[in-house]
Amino acid sequence: MRKVWKLASRPVGDIADGDLELVNEAVPDLAEGQFLLGVIYLSLDPTNRIWMSDMEQYMPPVALGAPMRAGVCGRVIASRKPGVEVGQIMAGLGEWADLIVSDGSMMSPLPQLAGISLAATYGTLALVGPTAYFGLLDIGQPKPGETLVVSAAAGGVGQIVGQIGKIKGARVIGIAGGKAKCDYVVNELGFDACIDYKNEDVGAALDRLAPGGIDINFEQVGGPIMIEVMNRMKLFGRVALCGMISGYNDVTPNDPPGYWTMILMRRLLIRGFIVTDFAPRFGESGMALAGWMLGGQLKTRQDIRPGLENAVETVKELYSGGNFGKLLIEVSQP
Amino acid sequence: MRKVWKLASRPVGDIADGDLELVNEAVPDLAEGQFLLGVIYLSLDPTNRIWMSDMEQYMPPVALGAPMRAGVCGRVIASRKPGVEVGQIMAGLGEWADLIVSDGSMMSPLPQLAGISLAATYGTLALVGPTAYFGLLDIGQPKPGETLVVSAAAGGVGQIVGQIGKIKGARVIGIAGGKAKCDYVVNELGFDACIDYKNEDVGAALDRLAPGGIDINFEQVGGPIMIEVMNRMKLFGRVALCGMISGYNDVTPNDPPGYWTMILMRRLLIRGFIVTDFAPRFGESGMALAGWMLGGQLKTRQDIRPGLENAVETVKELYSGGNFGKLLIEVSQP
Repeated sequence: MRKVWKLASRPVGDIADGDLELVNEAVPDLAEGQFLLGVIYLSLDPTNRIWMSDMEQYMPPVALGAPMRAGVCGRVIASRKPGVEVGQIMAGLGEWADLIVSDGSMMSPLPQLAGISLAATYGTLALVGPTAYFGLLDIGQPKPGETLVVSAAAGGVGQIVGQIGKIKGARVIGIAGGKAKCDYVVNELGFDACIDYKNEDVGAALDRLAPGGIDINFEQVGGPIMIEVMNRMKLFGRVALCGMISGYNDVTPNDPPGYWTMILMRRLLIRGFIVTDFAPRFGESGMALAGWMLGGQLKTRQDIRPGLENAVETVKELYSGGNFGKLLIEVSQP
Repeated sequence: MRKVWKLASRPVGDIADGDLELVNEAVPDLAEGQFLLGVIYLSLDPTNRIWMSDMEQYMPPVALGAPMRAGVCGRVIASRKPGVEVGQIMAGLGEWADLIVSDGSMMSPLPQLAGISLAATYGTLALVGPTAYFGLLDIGQPKPGETLVVSAAAGGVGQIVGQIGKIKGARVIGIAGGKAKCDYVVNELGFDACIDYKNEDVGAALDRLAPGGIDINFEQVGGPIMIEVMNRMKLFGRVALCGMISGYNDVTPNDPPGYWTMILMRRLLIRGFIVTDFAPRFGESGMALAGWMLGGQLKTRQDIRPGLENAVETVKELYSGGNFGKLLIEVSQP
């Protein structure tokens, strides 16, 4: 038997009790070419809420009645797939479940880095690391001395964006909720500054910290914070549009205004992206990220919560800023 | 003596009588390093209205009481600048005037193409050609078979964008006002189709002509037409934001909405640009454009109006779609 969360109804606004249901069901026998994965970590990400909806999105929505989709990492328990060995650690797209039957099409082996925990390896090298890497380097294109602002700075992606920005010589200003997160990204991760949006006027703080304006906006939150950042973009600035989590629970989409005149006059570049667009280059990002981790230039924090049964309550915290670091559910012992 | 239009007051809404004043004034003696240009063509462009305002813009606004700025092309009448010879044709940024004293810092020699009129050479190789070239090729990046939509299709820039799009193998849909302009870009310039926005429902026409959506929007008009195009952008589409003329006379800026969710989900690239951003590469665009003109692959139409004294009445036509081709004032005989 396996435990799996299934999407019972599409949330309207905040995720409500009953939108997802935890079901016990038989694990099907493995067919030739399949393997059974014992899930260790379930990755909870802002995009989960998008997948639950039927809004325009970049993958098919999760079908009603189907297992909820997620990034997962686990250990192979049984295999009828050549090249996939029992005991191997695999990561990729899976389900909110403790056991997953996979044909491997959305999974690949996860390298294990010496001296670094599986949670840190998975929580950095899997989707959040490439998201930060390609969004910042391909779209943001930081140059030494430029000013980079990253929202959701203490989250899974934000913490990596800021550190790559520092590696590339940019001046990095984070935006995060609460003193603990701000202190962490400045004191532990080396950001130049961090604005606590829960206790500071973001616009006034940006005026003080970036009086010359902002070269790069790594945008993750949307809403009023995005507006404050956009209003301060510099000539030839770049906006890597990674997400707008503040609106994901909105019943009626409420995009920030069109800054079309500003985009024209300041010659801004805006580009939306999804990490899977860069899949052919994951080897490049993986090597760079692993190198920085092993070299001590890239530290990441995971926020690990126990128990598959807590997945729904835990994923909700993403939308209220309750997580501190990359949010993972520990489904079984690593 | 010279005749020169000076900016007397900043227009509020449409340009009004008295906002610009035609003045007779003495031509100053040439200092060492200066030359006197007898203006032949004055280029009237949508951006003129921006320069008259004090809105956020990409150059300093024209100061009140100062000569109105414009692209010009003329013949050197007298020269105290080494390397600039009497009789030479020069083009660049100048003034709404019949005689201009220049130090050459904003001027360069205009090559004369065999068998092609000065109006066509100037009206293609000067700013509109590079605008079309870099906006389409650097930002739009057309690939064979892709669908390109260009608004203001029969205008100075639009006609060139569409033809370069065809050279690159794209399917080109123009949007223009009136049957004559639409017939021209399809029958004379080889566009695949053209939508007459004055007599057709633009959205319905786009649905019919581009049922699979739009890969590239070369945006020049803004407003409701831009909204119809944006709503039909394809995955990984590109928007070269060149201008939004429909709003230039607005007293209160009225940008189209922010398509942020769409930009994210469809991974659109949006980039604002001004042709002068590409000045270091004008040699490249000049050679390509001249080659296509001489090879018969690029035809351009100029809308030549006589008389410097008519400049104000003529520039207004840009904002009502009265021009058909690149709008020039013939200040003196070529």
